[in-house]
Amino acid sequence: MSHIVIAGAGLAGSLAAVYLAGRGHEVRVVERRPDPRTSTPDGRSINLGLSQRGITALREVGLLDELWGRTTPMRGRMVHTDAGTSFHPYGTADDEILHSILRDDLNAALIGRAEADGVRFDFEHKVVALDRSLPVLTVHDGQFTHELKADLVLGADGAFSTVRTLLHRGTRAELHQEFMDWGYKEITVPANPDTRLEALHLWPGRAGLVVAHPNHDGTLTATVFLPFDGDDSFAELTTPSAVRRLFATQFADLASLVPDLVEQFLAHPTGNLVTIRTAPWQHEGRVVLLGDAAHAVYPFYGQGMNAAFEDCSVLDTCLAEHDDIPGALREFERRRRRHTDVLAALSKENFLELRDGMRSPLFLARKKADLLLHKAFPNTWRPLYTMIAHTTTPYADALARARRQDRALAAAAVTVAGTVVAALARSRRQVPGR
Amino acid sequence: MSHIVIAGAGLAGSLAAVYLAGRGHEVRVVERRPDPRTSTPDGRSINLGLSQRGITALREVGLLDELWGRTTPMRGRMVHTDAGTSFHPYGTADDEILHSILRDDLNAALIGRAEADGVRFDFEHKVVALDRSLPVLTVHDGQFTHELKADLVLGADGAFSTVRTLLHRGTRAELHQEFMDWGYKEITVPANPDTRLEALHLWPGRAGLVVAHPNHDGTLTATVFLPFDGDDSFAELTTPSAVRRLFATQFADLASLVPDLVEQFLAHPTGNLVTIRTAPWQHEGRVVLLGDAAHAVYPFYGQGMNAAFEDCSVLDTCLAEHDDIPGALREFERRRRRHTDVLAALSKENFLELRDGMRSPLFLARKKADLLLHKAFPNTWRPLYTMIAHTTTPYADALARARRQDRALAAAAVTVAGTVVAALARSRRQVPGR
Ligand SMILES: Cc1cc2nc3c(=O)[nH]c(=O)nc-3n(C[C@H](O)[C@H](O)[C@H](O)COP(=O)(O)OP(=O)(O)OC[C@H]3O[C@@H](n4cnc5c(N)ncnc54)[C@H](O)[C@@H]3O)c2cc1C
Ligand SMILES: Cc1cc2nc3c(=O)[nH]c(=O)nc-3n(C[C@H](O)[C@H](O)[C@H](O)COP(=O)(O)OP(=O)(O)OC[C@H]3O[C@@H](n4cnc5c(N)ncnc54)[C@H](O)[C@@H]3O)c2cc1C
Repeated sequence: MSHIVIAGAGLAGSLAAVYLAGRGHEVRVVERRPDPRTSTPDGRSINLGLSQRGITALREVGLLDELWGRTTPMRGRMVHTDAGTSFHPYGTADDEILHSILRDDLNAALIGRAEADGVRFDFEHKVVALDRSLPVLTVHDGQFTHELKADLVLGADGAFSTVRTLLHRGTRAELHQEFMDWGYKEITVPANPDTRLEALHLWPGRAGLVVAHPNHDGTLTATVFLPFDGDDSFAELTTPSAVRRLFATQFADLASLVPDLVEQFLAHPTGNLVTIRTAPWQHEGRVVLLGDAAHAVYPFYGQGMNAAFEDCSVLDTCLAEHDDIPGALREFERRRRRHTDVLAALSKENFLELRDGMRSPLFLARKKADLLLHKAFPNTWRPLYTMIAHTTTPYADALARARRQDRALAAAAVTVAGTVVAALARSRRQVPGR
Repeated sequence: MSHIVIAGAGLAGSLAAVYLAGRGHEVRVVERRPDPRTSTPDGRSINLGLSQRGITALREVGLLDELWGRTTPMRGRMVHTDAGTSFHPYGTADDEILHSILRDDLNAALIGRAEADGVRFDFEHKVVALDRSLPVLTVHDGQFTHELKADLVLGADGAFSTVRTLLHRGTRAELHQEFMDWGYKEITVPANPDTRLEALHLWPGRAGLVVAHPNHDGTLTATVFLPFDGDDSFAELTTPSAVRRLFATQFADLASLVPDLVEQFLAHPTGNLVTIRTAPWQHEGRVVLLGDAAHAVYPFYGQGMNAAFEDCSVLDTCLAEHDDIPGALREFERRRRRHTDVLAALSKENFLELRDGMRSPLFLARKKADLLLHKAFPNTWRPLYTMIAHTTTPYADALARARRQDRALAAAAVTVAGTVVAALARSRRQVPGR
């Protein structure tokens, strides 16, 4: 049994606590914010799309049944344009769907379960220092400073991880940090028969994008993505008339669905979108990063939390396979990092798909063809989206397979074209008198 | 006249001070280290290769004549292998050469000149905080803290710039930081008739690389580049016998040139090599980065200092062209950043050239062909290296031109091949009876 201290009681930290308590370790979690079960939300995204990787991890720790009743299925994308709405299913099988869940519900369930398993949570305790070789984590509770000696420190303190900074200080660490020049704002769409459909709703605008997940009570939580600067940007949208004009001209029916749209827009904070790639994730088998602390991605593949949950599952497997924690941590980074690096790239690309693709007939036709091939050859043809969202095929393997499929399709197209040309040539030669 | 505070009295900071004092500004420089004119060197690279961009800037501020006498020309590369030595000139014109100069000589001359122009230097003053919107720079002298109010703060505090961190804190700044998994150590090669040649000396090893610049006194300063880990790495080379074996098997004649090689190797510190790309470089026209603080590159193109000097020259031009400092800083970043981003990529690539290329007959033949074309068509054909080292063509423009030349050469090769094939075909048709 080891003494493990986890920094961050977010999604990664609280699920990791459940896994580690399950291995018989003594686990303590320190979290900067107040207990989410008794405090009001603070403006992080309100709900999240749970997909196969997240589901698999929750099933592993036996939490899926409890949570299932609180999710809302999303069976495909409902695209809203001036021309009306159209529905595009995610997959061909019944289980190829996403599940919307409230962040706070999920976090509360994870913390509750960890506590029941004997994990101690110290809320309103902020990490301020780390001696990475002992390791000792220093936290501040607003009044006093505490030094927590551990066998292992887990940094699950999110994209702007303090543990990461302290882990890397003065070392040859690699860090790639990029922000989108777009931000986001959340808007609640009241329950409405027109949006009842079990779908992820999309409004592809000319200069912006709105994505909405359904909630259990029939409302939607819409996330409005817009540029920070320039025309129709957050910088410009500071008056009711500017906001009203934007929604009237760019996002079709949305304004009519949300009576207090302008008030919400002007009152809610604007969030940043960051990508973090970094290495190493661990230090001498004593400190390790996971979740957004190790790999924050843009939210356009809906995989940030799912990847964080998969991290916890992979780390648990590595701990099961190795007698020593240092060996397990090395293996965890070796096995996992290349996949989340690929996810970062895919999540960037998918922004362009969502923004431009959803309005492009060619793109939608390609998506449809992908699904038709998948239906015809379920075992040999899998669209990339299907593999990322509806399977647990590691991200880099999914990308490699999608590339092989694309090449095979191109080769097949060339063969078909060749056959046609040859047939034409033959038929010509048979034309008498030429 | 504005009040300008510069963080860092390294190469960029002290040259910027000269330029800015020349525009009539009141300039104060704060530097963490002691005055290099009265203290002993601290293990940074001992000498540097000065090329066209650096020379141009030094000429602009009227310092070239004073420094010229202290440089040693390097007319080409002298490659040392088991098979002996071979010399490869850098260019075809007399001025297409590099100049070796001692870092401390250069820095002392710049500081002396700035002081003569009225710049105030506060050595052993370390930047600890920045209010970027006033701006106010806070420095600590080991005993007291001082707040320096300025119209403009320049961050010239090197690759691990504190000003950069404070400039970016809490903003959507982009940062890419990567370390090579190779480090370096410096070794002094005593004066020796065999190395007298005015050249940059190169020992391309199987698992390492040694580069040496000549000094005025006939000695060479050799920089030994090796992997940090694995076989024949710094991690392994901790005993005299291991060091002796490495040099005997990898770097031909070097061991015989340096009697106390083993002692120097074991006593000298191992340095890191870092690449930094970042944005933005400036904040509201009040704080700006330049030199390594804005763009650290691997040293394999010998351009870090040259680019830092060119920064100072470009910034000076922008200040001359704009009435307002904020406009000048915006223009500086717009004009300059894309070029240093290209330099970062080229500097990475050139490592592979130096390591592998110098032992490859094909590569050396290509270099030679490049120079022959350059000699035959001096105005239309310019090898990339020539443009980077011996001209002031902006880096990105140099790369674009090199790519155009490569395409033209490939097209010419195809045309020649086509003509040959056509001629062969014609001659065949003329063979009677076939
Ligand atoms: C707009 C948006 C929509 C998204 N939608 C989806 C989606 O649909 N599906 C999906 O899978 N993912 C989605 N994500 C991504 C998802 O939110 C993250 O990947 C996930 O929250 C990562 O969990 P984490 O525990 O690693 O980090 P976090 O959830 O950020 O938790 C980190 C915790 O550490 C705490 N902390 C930070 N610093 C300290 C400190 N110094 N001391 C102590 N505690 C500290 C924080 O208070 C926080 O509780 C979305 C993200 C955004 C921004
Ligand atoms: C092995 C090696 C070989 C190289 N060879 C070449 C070459 O041949 N040709 C070439 O052009 N370039 C070369 N370079 C690159 C060159 O050394 C750098 O590009 C150059 O030194 C950058 O100058 P700078 O003033 O921006 O930064 P620096 O020279 O690093 O100066 C920064 C200054 O800021 C000070 N400082 C830092 N933090 C603080 C603080 N908090 N408060 C106050 N002061 C602070 C530092 O003490 C330092 O004096 C080489 C680099 C290396 C590592």
